[in-house]
Amino acid sequence: MIRFECDYAEGAHPKIMEKLMRTNMEQTIGYSEDKYCDEARELLKKLCNAPSSDVHFLVGGTQTNTTFIASVLRPYQGVISASTGHINVHETGAIESTGHKVIALESKDGKISAKQVRDCYLNHYNDESYEHMVQPGMVYISFPTENGTLYSKSELVEMYNVCKELDLPLYIDGARLGYGINSPKNDIKLTDFVDLCDAFYIGGTKEGMLFGEAIVINNPNLQKDFRYMIKQKGGMLAKGRLLGIQYLALFESDLYNKISLHADNLALKIRAAFEEKGISMLYDSYTNQQYPILPNDVLKKLAKKYSYSSWCSTDKNNSAVRFCTSWATKREDVDELLKDINTIL
Amino acid sequence: MIRFECDYAEGAHPKIMEKLMRTNMEQTIGYSEDKYCDEARELLKKLCNAPSSDVHFLVGGTQTNTTFIASVLRPYQGVISASTGHINVHETGAIESTGHKVIALESKDGKISAKQVRDCYLNHYNDESYEHMVQPGMVYISFPTENGTLYSKSELVEMYNVCKELDLPLYIDGARLGYGINSPKNDIKLTDFVDLCDAFYIGGTKEGMLFGEAIVINNPNLQKDFRYMIKQKGGMLAKGRLLGIQYLALFESDLYNKISLHADNLALKIRAAFEEKGISMLYDSYTNQQYPILPNDVLKKLAKKYSYSSWCSTDKNNSAVRFCTSWATKREDVDELLKDINTIL
Amino acid sequence: MIRFECDYAEGAHPKIMEKLMRTNMEQTIGYSEDKYCDEARELLKKLCNAPSSDVHFLVGGTQTNTTFIASVLRPYQGVISASTGHINVHETGAIESTGHKVIALESKDGKISAKQVRDCYLNHYNDESYEHMVQPGMVYISFPTENGTLYSKSELVEMYNVCKELDLPLYIDGARLGYGINSPKNDIKLTDFVDLCDAFYIGGTKEGMLFGEAIVINNPNLQKDFRYMIKQKGGMLAKGRLLGIQYLALFESDLYNKISLHADNLALKIRAAFEEKGISMLYDSYTNQQYPILPNDVLKKLAKKYSYSSWCSTDKNNSAVRFCTSWATKREDVDELLKDINTIL
Amino acid sequence: MIRFECDYAEGAHPKIMEKLMRTNMEQTIGYSEDKYCDEARELLKKLCNAPSSDVHFLVGGTQTNTTFIASVLRPYQGVISASTGHINVHETGAIESTGHKVIALESKDGKISAKQVRDCYLNHYNDESYEHMVQPGMVYISFPTENGTLYSKSELVEMYNVCKELDLPLYIDGARLGYGINSPKNDIKLTDFVDLCDAFYIGGTKEGMLFGEAIVINNPNLQKDFRYMIKQKGGMLAKGRLLGIQYLALFESDLYNKISLHADNLALKIRAAFEEKGISMLYDSYTNQQYPILPNDVLKKLAKKYSYSSWCSTDKNNSAVRFCTSWATKREDVDELLKDINTIL
Repeated sequence: MIRFECDYAEGAHPKIMEKLMRTNMEQTIGYSEDKYCDEARELLKKLCNAPSSDVHFLVGGTQTNTTFIASVLRPYQGVISASTGHINVHETGAIESTGHKVIALESKDGKISAKQVRDCYLNHYNDESYEHMVQPGMVYISFPTENGTLYSKSELVEMYNVCKELDLPLYIDGARLGYGINSPKNDIKLTDFVDLCDAFYIGGTKEGMLFGEAIVINNPNLQKDFRYMIKQKGGMLAKGRLLGIQYLALFESDLYNKISLHADNLALKIRAAFEEKGISMLYDSYTNQQYPILPNDVLKKLAKKYSYSSWCSTDKNNSAVRFCTSWATKREDVDELLKDINTIL
Repeated sequence: MIRFECDYAEGAHPKIMEKLMRTNMEQTIGYSEDKYCDEARELLKKLCNAPSSDVHFLVGGTQTNTTFIASVLRPYQGVISASTGHINVHETGAIESTGHKVIALESKDGKISAKQVRDCYLNHYNDESYEHMVQPGMVYISFPTENGTLYSKSELVEMYNVCKELDLPLYIDGARLGYGINSPKNDIKLTDFVDLCDAFYIGGTKEGMLFGEAIVINNPNLQKDFRYMIKQKGGMLAKGRLLGIQYLALFESDLYNKISLHADNLALKIRAAFEEKGISMLYDSYTNQQYPILPNDVLKKLAKKYSYSSWCSTDKNNSAVRFCTSWATKREDVDELLKDINTIL
Repeated sequence: MIRFECDYAEGAHPKIMEKLMRTNMEQTIGYSEDKYCDEARELLKKLCNAPSSDVHFLVGGTQTNTTFIASVLRPYQGVISASTGHINVHETGAIESTGHKVIALESKDGKISAKQVRDCYLNHYNDESYEHMVQPGMVYISFPTENGTLYSKSELVEMYNVCKELDLPLYIDGARLGYGINSPKNDIKLTDFVDLCDAFYIGGTKEGMLFGEAIVINNPNLQKDFRYMIKQKGGMLAKGRLLGIQYLALFESDLYNKISLHADNLALKIRAAFEEKGISMLYDSYTNQQYPILPNDVLKKLAKKYSYSSWCSTDKNNSAVRFCTSWATKREDVDELLKDINTIL
Repeated sequence: MIRFECDYAEGAHPKIMEKLMRTNMEQTIGYSEDKYCDEARELLKKLCNAPSSDVHFLVGGTQTNTTFIASVLRPYQGVISASTGHINVHETGAIESTGHKVIALESKDGKISAKQVRDCYLNHYNDESYEHMVQPGMVYISFPTENGTLYSKSELVEMYNVCKELDLPLYIDGARLGYGINSPKNDIKLTDFVDLCDAFYIGGTKEGMLFGEAIVINNPNLQKDFRYMIKQKGGMLAKGRLLGIQYLALFESDLYNKISLHADNLALKIRAAFEEKGISMLYDSYTNQQYPILPNDVLKKLAKKYSYSSWCSTDKNNSAVRFCTSWATKREDVDELLKDINTIL
């Protein structure tokens, strides 16, 4: 079985494992207060051109989203999200478990617009009974989205301008940030995020690490006491240095970008192969997740050799599925898939 | 100003006030353990033909909904509701504040179908990632709905059969139960509810009481320790006897039905007057809430003399509004409105 | 049975009932936005000499405490309270249900000292692992305490100075505020509270109203959006005018003070009668709650005619109990008790 | 600096790292549904002699405690714990953040007795106002405790008998389980726990793993849907196999016991060295944590070369501190410490 179902099927990139091995027997203090975490925080702040931002390391994405969102909202506030957003669909109600509604805005491709956010805000305050309704308290978007799509820089600028105008902190879920930044269609740089949102995270789990996410909190008003939040929500790793060491391995060279680019390129090859055969894509993705709509009998044949994620049936005979590449995807595995696409379709 | 904007514009029905006055200086123990509450509980159980049910008194509707739903669900479960449901729209996220998602199903008229519930359940368990999603844990419906519409007995039977089959407790918000039961289009009796849901409440606030809701918990598995829940959620009134006394006043004669019928009749007169003038209704309501779609200039004229609730604009020149009657609505006020409808339209 | 077990055994003071009756059929808008609530809010602000404070009406004490405390604290913070505090003991974990620890400080008589608060704060920040511990976020005290005791003005000034220095909002539970203010040993006036805490509430339920508590939020930073909190926590009464009307009845004349003084005087008579017989008091209370320590056989005799609250056994043969007076306690009932004390002891 | 401050100063045991390296490039499905997790679960069930128990892997201890406790309790229930319990002191209110009070029982050495649990239960139900108080819902103990002490088998049997009698599930925090099981004073075997509690966890983080805790749920009534809980509370690792692989490395040979014994032996050498010099211990620990009470000037001298944890000052001139050993503690480091103890004291 060749796995294309997700971007977390392997362990970690060999350079990360190597650094973990090399430092394994060193003694450090716990809870991410060690020198590796210090270095990694400084490095990320430098690479993000964000000297005043706070960087914290957490273990997983659901945890990072929940911890930050719960830290920002007042009890009667909710977080605006695309209906397709990870927090709305795939976190078993983690946001709600901290007391907050996810205010879901309709989305076809995973994105929401600045206009949708403004309308949601205005609808709230224009309602006679606004105090009887959940107050919009912040905005959550994903970059890339759960559907592989990207906000352009101008879209993100417009979104953040609206957010600042309406006093709605903007938080970006960057579980796959590298795959977004390195997409051929992307015009947003890592150094742009410091000016384009209140906080974002640089995902590690899906980008070659064993686990780990680095949240960058730009807005100084949202920085206070965040370590208490991490501890309470179960994200403070005793051997915190594991997070610092992994982020160093990923960012002290250009490894993060290199492996993201690798994955994007392979994903676009797969997309091209399908499109050449007249297959349409459910979403217009230029990142590492691709969503071809395929006849069910074709899928059956592919499933003998390849794993992919089910997504949705589009009609009686066809279904959209997800093929996902990663830092670990082998060129020869993709080549074999391309060959089989040519044969089967 | 003649008020038609809601069914809680006045104090309480005179018979209730009278009973409160008469008992005012008696000494009783607190927290609804007094003799009046005992009597009222027994009376309601008798009238509902529900000797094994538990009856509890709470102060308000949001509180009743939140307390019961929080009592039923496990932490990772959500409550299925129409998207228009009171708990989804007008309780400032009270359900979410107790940790639970409202799983909103699309609804045009305030109702959801047994099929929608079953599909929601199946979609959950058919999803590969079902453990990453909020598990449907119970069903919430309103009778009448927030739009004045009613479930027929056969619809409710079908709904409860599905709920029992899928092990989803069914809870009915009866804030306006009397207006539903006494509607000319209704075929469900008060004694039917014991067999048609796991719990429901008999609303008092909107049915002539100063305040108060009586929840009837039919399912013995959901009865345990409910008074702890009431206390924790702020619903345990120190002078609990006020609730028992009011319910006695409403139910020891046929007052509850009488005043509900009064309100329904007047509401249907208003509906008929509008329809005679070719005005359509946003929802097909046969209860005390009516939703005419009126030209904005007509509304302007009516607003000089009558209050109503804004609902939504249906196009550039027309808006749906709500006219609401209650136990306290005066026939002469309705007559005056009818006259003005004839003049203005 | 003559009831001395609590101060909420009757309905409401006749003047309150009268005003409720007189206004009963008037139509007003709901949710405490009516003219009676407006008037009552203005009146209370005037009487408190607190023109910049916000006044809100809620239904009960547990609800008021929970709603305000949940509104102030960040998720990782707890509320400092005497171990005997109502929020720590008698609210079925309502505070915890909103996510917050009650940080209980030892107390013999219901009071805590400014020094205890400072020590608690210093212990937290001096601990190496302070981020692993609940951060003290505010202070809760009761006036009078649950044991009938009172803070002196100088004690309260010292407490608030420490609170301001440490940035810990101070909140005062005034369920029985009037009984405190009118105690012969008290030196704090209603107009003092605006300068001595961030928020307090003027209890109604235990002071002659059917129900109702009026919170006065002095600190402008804690005022924002409080009505959303009230709605979410189930405290927003549909017929909100009932709260305004009752507060007007209590405060537009000097009724509140008059009935509080009445209760205090009768309670102190009871205390004197016991003390004359050599009975000691568990707490040194000069308010409407008295805690004699009595031989169990004496209690048995008293129990035939009088109800009181059990408190705790002090040794094998003796128990402390609570005798409580209120606005409604009749002089002749107290006289009879005094006579029986003389006979039995 | 030689670190004795905790048992998580290094990475993982070399055998664990080796297995992680060896399997690193294999592709598996995520979220602990892979073959390594399957094997590890089966292995642990076999070693625990617990074929009907459920085993789940989580990332950290606070997370494991919070997830399980939140899964067991109803909203109005609290968890009984020693006042010194990790959940009461060092988890930043994680339990409270899920809505539940920690009912703290006094403890001098980290243990609580079956009698204390029974008294707590009886006090609750004997109180007139029990519905106004948090209901005891389960019992949490640690083995070994946070102070290094151990329950004897007969104590644990008695505790569990009381728990079963009172219908209070018993949960054991086994963050350092191996150090307990391998203590020379211990008489409880790994296979005993299946009969002595409803659930316990076999800690990995402090026992040689990079991270990871394995919860064993014995009581079938508490097993349902636990994976939803793990996901919601942020404990479901995408690359879940990392947990399975590490547990396999620890348990497929006798490594877990071997390294625990190693740590206990070294800790007891340190204890002996101190005691030989007349130093008393704050707690009577026979596990890997030792708590000597030392003159402050001695501590100053030791601090130049060794790290330890501050605990508490016992008088003006003396303080208790914690020396902690682990699987990774080197014999030569302990020997050096022993030498220095002899010199300095």
